[in-house]
Amino acid sequence: MNALVIDIGGTNTRVALASGPAIVPGSVRRYRNAEHAGLDAVLARYLSDAGTPPIQSACAALAGPVRDGRGRLTNLDWTIDEADIARVTGARRVRLINDLQAQGYALDHLSPGALIPVLHGPQVRGGARLVIGIGTGFNAAAVHAGPTGTLVTAAEAGHSTLPVSDEAGLSLARFAAGADGFAAVEDILSGRGLEHAFGWITSQAGSPRTMAAHSIVERAATDPDAAQALRLFADMLGVVAGDLALNHLPFGGLFLTGGVARAVTPYLDAPGFAASFRAKGRFAPLMAEFAVHTVTDDFAALTGCAGYLAGQG
Amino acid sequence: MNALVIDIGGTNTRVALASGPAIVPGSVRRYRNAEHAGLDAVLARYLSDAGTPPIQSACAALAGPVRDGRGRLTNLDWTIDEADIARVTGARRVRLINDLQAQGYALDHLSPGALIPVLHGPQVRGGARLVIGIGTGFNAAAVHAGPTGTLVTAAEAGHSTLPVSDEAGLSLARFAAGADGFAAVEDILSGRGLEHAFGWITSQAGSPRTMAAHSIVERAATDPDAAQALRLFADMLGVVAGDLALNHLPFGGLFLTGGVARAVTPYLDAPGFAASFRAKGRFAPLMAEFAVHTVTDDFAALTGCAGYLAGQG
Repeated sequence: MNALVIDIGGTNTRVALASGPAIVPGSVRRYRNAEHAGLDAVLARYLSDAGTPPIQSACAALAGPVRDGRGRLTNLDWTIDEADIARVTGARRVRLINDLQAQGYALDHLSPGALIPVLHGPQVRGGARLVIGIGTGFNAAAVHAGPTGTLVTAAEAGHSTLPVSDEAGLSLARFAAGADGFAAVEDILSGRGLEHAFGWITSQAGSPRTMAAHSIVERAATDPDAAQALRLFADMLGVVAGDLALNHLPFGGLFLTGGVARAVTPYLDAPGFAASFRAKGRFAPLMAEFAVHTVTDDFAALTGCAGYLAGQG
Repeated sequence: MNALVIDIGGTNTRVALASGPAIVPGSVRRYRNAEHAGLDAVLARYLSDAGTPPIQSACAALAGPVRDGRGRLTNLDWTIDEADIARVTGARRVRLINDLQAQGYALDHLSPGALIPVLHGPQVRGGARLVIGIGTGFNAAAVHAGPTGTLVTAAEAGHSTLPVSDEAGLSLARFAAGADGFAAVEDILSGRGLEHAFGWITSQAGSPRTMAAHSIVERAATDPDAAQALRLFADMLGVVAGDLALNHLPFGGLFLTGGVARAVTPYLDAPGFAASFRAKGRFAPLMAEFAVHTVTDDFAALTGCAGYLAGQG
């Protein structure tokens, strides 16, 4: 029984075949969204390359809000519809979920080696868990052990207010804000956001520069501004992840995922991240109870789609 | 079969008898915490006044974090333990839950007249709902329809970072912050927080005054500073409730509850609340999809405790 699993990110779409909750080895392919007219074209190409296998069910994870089996890719003009996926693939059963929800459904199926510890803490088995995704955008999904199964909640956490606590933060928020003047979490905590942090730091120093996110990460050892941008990013991630922890009480742990989260993980060891994560006034002691990890498995959303389809029976 | 239901707030504790998911009419009593040594004393007095009825089960809702059947009242030095409640009441089955979780379990048992509409929006049956409690403190609880029942999540949302987006907000946050310099949501959005807002407004105007929260509400028609404090409170509530909506996507509606929420509800009609609730940049259109209500039933937490015990079977 073949299932098709699809991870539609802001930049790339990944497609694979799944058998039960497991990805079929060697079946993962990645496509650049910008090179395709829409998801239909991506799926047609995948199935053609794979020798048009019969597909019984399909699950797609989308980087954007999903309602009633439909959604739009927030960062690109693609509309995704369960009915379209059924038509192109021939699948009888199709489910469209948010990509962070897929990351949540993956947690129980990750290999132990797929996690890097960031902050230690007592991890309560059966406690709520929180996945925080940082890539093209930012989002979070809480994973709750319900009476008969796992419940993963949807959110648009990256579009909530960027936290500010001093004049420097206000200046940063204004630098990163969109044309409407609203500075969201995602305006710093994303690939684009890291570029904002770098642009702000160099502007403050009187010699404004721009640098692509991947270059900021690559040049941090030799470019002090790049290193400072990463420290600023780590501090802001600490504040935001701490606020999210207070909103979801993930005593089962926090799990950072996505390309940007993986890239910045070496910078979360420095004291900035832990200090800003825990700086919640008289609730600071509670913050020491939350463990934080980074998920290194780049295909976790596909695993989550497979797990979701298998779990639905 | 008698159940005892208990709502331990920051200022008062309410106790009642329940039969199934319903409160026994006339059985509700309210006690000021400050006049009692602890919950044991309150319960002993209630049971004695009620003629020592046999109690089979009990559920207590606590204004503070609950773990492993124990919790501490955040705003008073009371430790609450399921085992103590069992000992004092003789109940065989005792459950301690967070008070906002209790409000969540009450939603399905409220009479239609118990809700005041604040913001209209399409309310999706089966969609997630969000209860926001504002009284001595601030907290939120998401209500999800799980595979076999209602799941209400716990949080300490009032201790997350107070949102700031301009110099005035920064000044307000510094005025309201604790000795550690951290300004939390609860430092404005609570009874004490409304007093901070009033103190800041009068300080800004050059004639600092203090006024108790209930007086600010009572004198708003005649005292311009009091009216301005309520407008500031409504604006901040809009920002925070909007951020919480992005974090929980409550397409089934938001429900404001607690004494302070009820007191400020007349001021949520003014444009400030709706405008700040919806001012989320390019996500503003999504914000129009969330309906907001105020729960007028002051005993909803007790109803939630009864519903929780009945739902557990």
